[in-house]
Amino acid sequence: MKLTQYFFPTLRDDPQEAQIVSHKLMLRGGFITQSSSGIYSWLPMGLKVLNKISDIIREEQNKVGHIEVLMPTIQSSDLWRESGRYEDYGKEMLRFTDRHDREMLYGPTNEELITDIFRTFIKSYKHIPLTLYQIQWKFRDEIRPRFGVMRGREFLMKDGYSFDLDMEGAKKSYKAHYEAYLRTFKRMGLTAIPVKADSGAIGGDMSHEFQILAQTGESTLYYDSEIENLNGQDLDIDKLQSLYAAAEEKHDPSICPVPADKLKVAKGIEVGHIFYFGTKYSDPFGATVMGSDGEPVTVHMGSYGIGVSRLVAAIIEASHDDNGIIWPEAVAPFKVGLVNLKPSDETTSALCEKFYVSALAKGIEILYDDRDERAGVKFADMDLIGLPFQVIIGPKGAATGRVEIKIRKTGERQDLSFEDALKLF
Amino acid sequence: MKLTQYFFPTLRDDPQEAQIVSHKLMLRGGFITQSSSGIYSWLPMGLKVLNKISDIIREEQNKVGHIEVLMPTIQSSDLWRESGRYEDYGKEMLRFTDRHDREMLYGPTNEELITDIFRTFIKSYKHIPLTLYQIQWKFRDEIRPRFGVMRGREFLMKDGYSFDLDMEGAKKSYKAHYEAYLRTFKRMGLTAIPVKADSGAIGGDMSHEFQILAQTGESTLYYDSEIENLNGQDLDIDKLQSLYAAAEEKHDPSICPVPADKLKVAKGIEVGHIFYFGTKYSDPFGATVMGSDGEPVTVHMGSYGIGVSRLVAAIIEASHDDNGIIWPEAVAPFKVGLVNLKPSDETTSALCEKFYVSALAKGIEILYDDRDERAGVKFADMDLIGLPFQVIIGPKGAATGRVEIKIRKTGERQDLSFEDALKLF
Repeated sequence: MKLTQYFFPTLRDDPQEAQIVSHKLMLRGGFITQSSSGIYSWLPMGLKVLNKISDIIREEQNKVGHIEVLMPTIQSSDLWRESGRYEDYGKEMLRFTDRHDREMLYGPTNEELITDIFRTFIKSYKHIPLTLYQIQWKFRDEIRPRFGVMRGREFLMKDGYSFDLDMEGAKKSYKAHYEAYLRTFKRMGLTAIPVKADSGAIGGDMSHEFQILAQTGESTLYYDSEIENLNGQDLDIDKLQSLYAAAEEKHDPSICPVPADKLKVAKGIEVGHIFYFGTKYSDPFGATVMGSDGEPVTVHMGSYGIGVSRLVAAIIEASHDDNGIIWPEAVAPFKVGLVNLKPSDETTSALCEKFYVSALAKGIEILYDDRDERAGVKFADMDLIGLPFQVIIGPKGAATGRVEIKIRKTGERQDLSFEDALKLF
Repeated sequence: MKLTQYFFPTLRDDPQEAQIVSHKLMLRGGFITQSSSGIYSWLPMGLKVLNKISDIIREEQNKVGHIEVLMPTIQSSDLWRESGRYEDYGKEMLRFTDRHDREMLYGPTNEELITDIFRTFIKSYKHIPLTLYQIQWKFRDEIRPRFGVMRGREFLMKDGYSFDLDMEGAKKSYKAHYEAYLRTFKRMGLTAIPVKADSGAIGGDMSHEFQILAQTGESTLYYDSEIENLNGQDLDIDKLQSLYAAAEEKHDPSICPVPADKLKVAKGIEVGHIFYFGTKYSDPFGATVMGSDGEPVTVHMGSYGIGVSRLVAAIIEASHDDNGIIWPEAVAPFKVGLVNLKPSDETTSALCEKFYVSALAKGIEILYDDRDERAGVKFADMDLIGLPFQVIIGPKGAATGRVEIKIRKTGERQDLSFEDALKLF
């Protein structure tokens, strides 16, 4: 993509409304723009990141046999009365009546709707275990939306729901999600710490939050430092689950089994939550199947969320410097940013064009800054938007067929021949 | 995908609520299920078709340099007051207040929001022409939702918006869309007839509806039969645009230039609409840019819609028989359906498994009916869901390594060796 033909609205100055670094950088880099309080439009590069995150989540869900569906954003209140949550859910639920005065709502979550789908179609133990998931927009009418897409009102979420014959089955489904979530976050270049969470009376220890480590995180985590190592290798789930990790409100130093020199304290951002809730919805909804003995069985359920739009911000919180974003390669809007230092110079522009075309032919996602702007502006913009690699071509190098590579994360620079540079990607 | 591990809720009988064939077949084939009036959940295969249609639209838009963004579903009423449409738009607009009593709405279309984004960021003629588009859910509170996703309330639409310096530029943008739309529908296996539509006082002849030919269509079209030929070849737009085509309400036999033997009368379903509207929104919004002479210019705009979820139904209306859907290959949920006639027979199941694994290894999208069901049920289901190719393996063939191929569209059958069958795809 050439910048002169793109929609690339970067801002020079920090927007006043932004308090946290991810919000600032997303606005300055032209990734999002606010349309009303807590509601954002995704501009071209923001949408690319959002889609890459969605795709990674989708791939890891499909790999373990979970099946994607798509439920509507607007729901009838009927199902929520059936579960008893219509009254319980407070003002965060966006409610309204349609032209026929029927009570409707914008789904903040989908346990009711998915349980309704399940009971409509699944009648036999033969179709179980089953996990259905979707990636769909939700709305929660936060009283004080803030921090950009970190705590917005309209947000994209992956929500999955497992159906099992009994608690043993539910445990397997839970574990499959636990593993898939760790793999998902790892692919995004993140260290995710699974932390035990409240599960109410039902779930026992089957409720975990997944927290991304970031200095600006909202939660304080206490955990066995070995978790970070296990997280980076081939996953040993049983080992991982045996290690201590707790958020501040659940951490009790008097019973913490980890010696002080191995206990790590760090800030985290919650990006996922998995949760077993037994028959909480299947009971009132009559979601039963015929068991192998011919007797009806009420299914056991769990729900599994990942904050997709929130992850865009969380990744930036975890990976940036003073100059801007540092995208992990797997979620970067483009892999390579090509900087033409002097578009008015024919040799430079010809070499840039050749690099651009060659990269496209190789299937490399490349953004070409062909604007008639000062080099300083281009360098600043390229650092700001945080593509993993920069290829810089100016008149001096172009004269001898040399290009400069800059690795955004380390700042490391290399002077290479055109051919060697192209081979890098 | 193996059926025993899939979510595949086909129905034996015609659902009573469905009046038109696409609605019946989508419900019976397990593509959608209604969640409330005019609002549907997309089940796994329905979602696959929806995504394939979206991807084709996206590719053809990107090819002509249009840029994808994503606007939120929920909008503030402020912008709609600025354009004057808040009061004009009737009860089809879903309105509500949030917890702070601010008036909000679920976007039925996005001219206001996109014009607001444009005026915020684009200040110079250098960034023009520009076309931004999105594929996003809309809501229109139809008084009588009917015909399934053909006229639902929550629906997926591609909506694009062009920004030009003058009418000459707008004409070019319009033509680019006209061409891209024809290519888009052609890739979906459809014959689309562009029909002149009402454009109010502003647009002159720059308003076209794209109608898919289907016997069950709502509109009656009168058009030069040559359009169908041109539509099937490399597009000659100028020629095509010179030919007569009109919907019933605009057709006047007394001035129709086409001789009776060349005039075709057919039913159509509207799946797209392109529309030039000049400065209707840019004027009240002050969407001006600096022209090349340094003077401010109010931009000329057009909008361009495709009914994405509606297309799923429209394609079925255009392509089905008594036994079910006949998906054009480009939008089929799977390319191949593999039927195991006797799962209890080891040789048969081994050959099926081998075919399934080999097909997956070749990257073929294949659905394997490995259920313990009667052959008749499997044949009926496979015809119903309309995959382009069926591969049928039973004990007789399996004993000698032979498989049967059935082409869904023609019913043509071929007896082939395992290897030759695999090579077909």
